Amino acid sequence: MTQTARIADIGKPRIIIVGGGFAGIELAKSLRQADAQVILIDKQNHHAFQPLLYQVATAGLEADSIVYPFRKIFEDQKNFYFRMAEVESVDTTRQIVHTTIGEITYDYLVIATGATTNYYGNEQIQEHAVPIKTIEDSIALRNKILSNFERALLTDDDEQMNSLIDYVIVGGGPTGVEIAGALAELKLHVFPQDYRELDFLKMDIHLIQSGPRLLNGMSEEASLKALDFLQELGVHVWLNCRVKSYDGYTVEFENGEKLITRTLIWAAGVCGMPIPGLREESVLKGNRLQVDIYNRVLGYKNIFAIGDVAAMITRATPQGHPMMAPPAMQQGKALGKNICCLLEGKPLKAFRYYDKGSMATIGRNKAVVDLNGYKTQGIIAWFVWMFVHLISIVGYRNRLVVLMNWMWSYFSYDKGIRLIIGNKKEKQVAREKEAMPT
Amino acid sequence: MTQTARIADIGKPRIIIVGGGFAGIELAKSLRQADAQVILIDKQNHHAFQPLLYQVATAGLEADSIVYPFRKIFEDQKNFYFRMAEVESVDTTRQIVHTTIGEITYDYLVIATGATTNYYGNEQIQEHAVPIKTIEDSIALRNKILSNFERALLTDDDEQMNSLIDYVIVGGGPTGVEIAGALAELKLHVFPQDYRELDFLKMDIHLIQSGPRLLNGMSEEASLKALDFLQELGVHVWLNCRVKSYDGYTVEFENGEKLITRTLIWAAGVCGMPIPGLREESVLKGNRLQVDIYNRVLGYKNIFAIGDVAAMITRATPQGHPMMAPPAMQQGKALGKNICCLLEGKPLKAFRYYDKGSMATIGRNKAVVDLNGYKTQGIIAWFVWMFVHLISIVGYRNRLVVLMNWMWSYFSYDKGIRLIIGNKKEKQVAREKEAMPT
Repeated sequence: MTQTARIADIGKPRIIIVGGGFAGIELAKSLRQADAQVILIDKQNHHAFQPLLYQVATAGLEADSIVYPFRKIFEDQKNFYFRMAEVESVDTTRQIVHTTIGEITYDYLVIATGATTNYYGNEQIQEHAVPIKTIEDSIALRNKILSNFERALLTDDDEQMNSLIDYVIVGGGPTGVEIAGALAELKLHVFPQDYRELDFLKMDIHLIQSGPRLLNGMSEEASLKALDFLQELGVHVWLNCRVKSYDGYTVEFENGEKLITRTLIWAAGVCGMPIPGLREESVLKGNRLQVDIYNRVLGYKNIFAIGDVAAMITRATPQGHPMMAPPAMQQGKALGKNICCLLEGKPLKAFRYYDKGSMATIGRNKAVVDLNGYKTQGIIAWFVWMFVHLISIVGYRNRLVVLMNWMWSYFSYDKGIRLIIGNKKEKQVAREKEAMPT
Repeated sequence: MTQTARIADIGKPRIIIVGGGFAGIELAKSLRQADAQVILIDKQNHHAFQPLLYQVATAGLEADSIVYPFRKIFEDQKNFYFRMAEVESVDTTRQIVHTTIGEITYDYLVIATGATTNYYGNEQIQEHAVPIKTIEDSIALRNKILSNFERALLTDDDEQMNSLIDYVIVGGGPTGVEIAGALAELKLHVFPQDYRELDFLKMDIHLIQSGPRLLNGMSEEASLKALDFLQELGVHVWLNCRVKSYDGYTVEFENGEKLITRTLIWAAGVCGMPIPGLREESVLKGNRLQVDIYNRVLGYKNIFAIGDVAAMITRATPQGHPMMAPPAMQQGKALGKNICCLLEGKPLKAFRYYDKGSMATIGRNKAVVDLNGYKTQGIIAWFVWMFVHLISIVGYRNRLVVLMNWMWSYFSYDKGIRLIIGNKKEKQVAREKEAMPT
């Protein structure tokens, strides 16, 4: 496309932010006072609170309560402009981004495109596995889980039935652990009432971790306790185990073992999503952009990267910062201040990450928390987890709805959102029919 | 398909209910004590509260809060079975329904399939207009409205812009009136903050009614006041006006006038959805099934129809009952009792409709209510409308969420769910591009 996207030229330096995740939002907010035009480009019209996607997938929350429209977040910020579009590439010499709505020029470009599911080059797994990285992924997974049970009622064949009600989750990080726990709770408290005709002793949930322990980024205590909690809930945890292949029905492991499932949930890793058009030398392993201590992409003066897509390689962080919300938010905020400094001709300040710790929830009253030297597991950790997530969600309405849903589930042992909605279902069913042997 | 759907034979008379709308749900509930096997078949896994679909379409409510899983409604009812499937036809001699999951035999068959949008045979309108009869319709309409505004920002051409921000609603019944009012409120209170770059004086909302007054089924006072309220909100109401054609861009009326819009919302009528395989003589105009005073389909002993798809033609109801929730619920309940009588060899009782009145809401503090001789319009009517709808929604969790959203909107003048979610968008955009002249 060669046309220019219609957007007012207000005669001020133009800062384009690509991506409205945690990093992009914080950056745009901290540019509130900047004497500049701030343009956020995102393919969605809303920010999504990714840490709770797994609850959407497991019928605990409605999708609408963890997403929030960008225009609403910034309704009072005069220098803010939003365009819903996909950025296709960047022309760094002409200082232009090519998007699905046309070209847009920039003075400063910030890449905050985040991360996507990493299948490590295995196309077969990519084709058949279920990711859980976007709102659409989560709704599709919810629809698939519920449709599977409806279909399981219709077969007399034990293997066919197990393929529908068994789940294999690959990846022992927070997402894998949280989704395994949530599925186990559905198995214990919700599905047996819904599907009285099925025998839930036959339902197996497997969690596959390539390394020797779960929750790699957390303390030894947290790892062990998470394993305990999952086993208490009946989840089969496989450590030191790697998936070799998956054809939509049979999972084969590197050690030769096999499992049957129609639903392999892939939470085994993420990689960055840089924009085409940047120097190849700046793109590191895992598709992240190497940035300096000011989040400037190596080789450019006016192009920055923040959040999951940025890798700030220093002696303290030889792999860059962890690909999680807190570093993204802190980088967004810091870069906002630095861009203001640039605009005003002041010196920049190096980014310093303040690690607040991390946490994961396994189920009702079961969570693990590592906070700055303070470690706890169990019910207190669970309340800490809920509190931290609740206050982090954007928008008071959303916080209220989420809180209400959590209280509801807690006291009723129920999940309210067991709904198959949308038109992805048909495609999945069609795809699965092909994958079905016989 | 010739295979038999897997479903336990419990050695009791089998009652199949096709469709879990208001009628089907009430029927299944009132069969709780029946010594029979009650099988509900629906293509969705949830009941939808149709009277509030328009609020989903206009970003006032999340879809999840007005739908409720069937399995949850009936979790304590032992004789209840659910199958998610589409019924393709019925073989009345073999007493079998053919479904997408196989054949199922019945002793009693109840058709509660409801109604679908009626385009009165105009295929061009059917192809381009937007219906609002299902949850999927409502979400697609919400996505379309919001995407239209995002696209309107990108054009300099006045006609193109107006085609995106103008709306034509066809049908002056409750749905048309309610959606026109809700759009007008978005125009007044919500969109101007979201889209500061657009001039909302240019946004026009047209409501088209073929007859001389709005809300035909209600009192003269209600009709006049609804017209007043809409005009106060800036809606252009066209009475005695009929659409002749619509190509996705230009609406042509029978009187020769024209309007430009990319969004023609069709709320001009519904027709029944009977199951193929029944005697043609039983299918009346508007595709409804003629039933006797016991809701038995004419010509059959063990086949019944209830709700919108049933037309009980009597001297008092020469057109059958109105196609609304109250007659559907009452027929469902009454038929439940009658089937119990049949099973126990007792005489049947003729159906009698108790008309509680009707109501419609136009906007904040603006509703019209006709209740059994009592008529009111304005703020009291608005509270009555909210109260009646709130207590009618299935599920305490849903009631709480809806109440919270309404209170939130009321005090903040805001609609929380301005989200473009799902994958229908792309298709629409693609379709519209074709319809776009030049």
